[in-house]
Amino acid sequence: MEKEISQAVIKRMPRYYRYLGELISDGVERISSNELSIRMKVTASQIRQDLNNFGGFGQQGYGYNVKFLHEEIGKILGLDKQHHIIIIGAGNLGQALANYVKFEERGFIIIGLFDINPAMKDIAVRGIQIRMVEELERFIKEHDVDIAALTLPKAKATEMAERVIDLGVHAIWNFAHVDLEVPDNVVVQNVHLSDSLMQLSYTLEKQKKEKVKK
Amino acid sequence: MEKEISQAVIKRMPRYYRYLGELISDGVERISSNELSIRMKVTASQIRQDLNNFGGFGQQGYGYNVKFLHEEIGKILGLDKQHHIIIIGAGNLGQALANYVKFEERGFIIIGLFDINPAMKDIAVRGIQIRMVEELERFIKEHDVDIAALTLPKAKATEMAERVIDLGVHAIWNFAHVDLEVPDNVVVQNVHLSDSLMQLSYTLEKQKKEKVKK
Repeated sequence: MEKEISQAVIKRMPRYYRYLGELISDGVERISSNELSIRMKVTASQIRQDLNNFGGFGQQGYGYNVKFLHEEIGKILGLDKQHHIIIIGAGNLGQALANYVKFEERGFIIIGLFDINPAMKDIAVRGIQIRMVEELERFIKEHDVDIAALTLPKAKATEMAERVIDLGVHAIWNFAHVDLEVPDNVVVQNVHLSDSLMQLSYTLEKQKKEKVKK
Repeated sequence: MEKEISQAVIKRMPRYYRYLGELISDGVERISSNELSIRMKVTASQIRQDLNNFGGFGQQGYGYNVKFLHEEIGKILGLDKQHHIIIIGAGNLGQALANYVKFEERGFIIIGLFDINPAMKDIAVRGIQIRMVEELERFIKEHDVDIAALTLPKAKATEMAERVIDLGVHAIWNFAHVDLEVPDNVVVQNVHLSDSLMQLSYTLEKQKKEKVKK
């Protein structure tokens, strides 16, 4: 039986993946957990612990093979497989996502872009034609859709989530500022920009107060 | 002396704020931690623990006064103050942020939008004129800028962060896919969309594997 890996560890894995990718670009072939620790500003013991969750990957005294570790973490994150994404809501945010070529390099292929605004019909964003949401049913039946990104207003997100789930989509990347209620077999990843901004203002105000005290 | 409040607690506060705001809209004046717990899908003891970090706010047996609690959490998050934001990078993502009217309702006022592309000069997004980055120095000297949102390519983000920090900006909302190195008196909040997408694909693939096993 596999042990349950904590969300905190999972959250750190994309960062390892990113740093290892940069090391590859820099021509680094092997790195000790100490060196990686300095570069990533986390403790070496944290790195070892995190990676031990997946079986280790390092040889005592030899450090990590950068390319191998990058590949293995990629596999853990599911990046060795292609994932087809549709984006629902072709406003600025939806278009920003459609324009991220980096997603494709990691196997996330945006295959559809949908909106309700007829003025947007057939406009293309980086070659991806904007379709009307009425076409969703047929599109999802005819294509393998792994992930639906919801970049639409809060008021419409819940209904749209239900609609794509009913059509068999099992993963939702939710940018609407609402917590979606989904069945157990559906995964949701939220990007709540307002929440992020409020965390920033909390930290900023806290720091101001501390400065005043000093 | 104030005790240090964990990042995990801070991350949950915007969500409390959001739910309490919805309760106010629904006309709810008072709520027990049990009812709030059901609504938010966290345990009542977690809610009590989280809020006790800031002094409690509830009366045993009486529950929470929704409006009061909403206001107090707003204060904790610094939402009782105005924060001026500039957005650097007026591409789709920058424009998406500029278009979020909700930010303003919470006291985050976008006062400037900057880009390097001359074709964008003087175009306005929701009444906010796009300025050229050459004007940054003067603009920051003439305005109170609390937060700089960086919605520009990774390759330019580090240099731009240094530039605004030198000009006295103490908070950076970073959308570039790079970890910024900043002095201790500067706060950074990252929104790494690729990391979020990789977490989603990890969870999706894990669920697929578990389904196969069953």
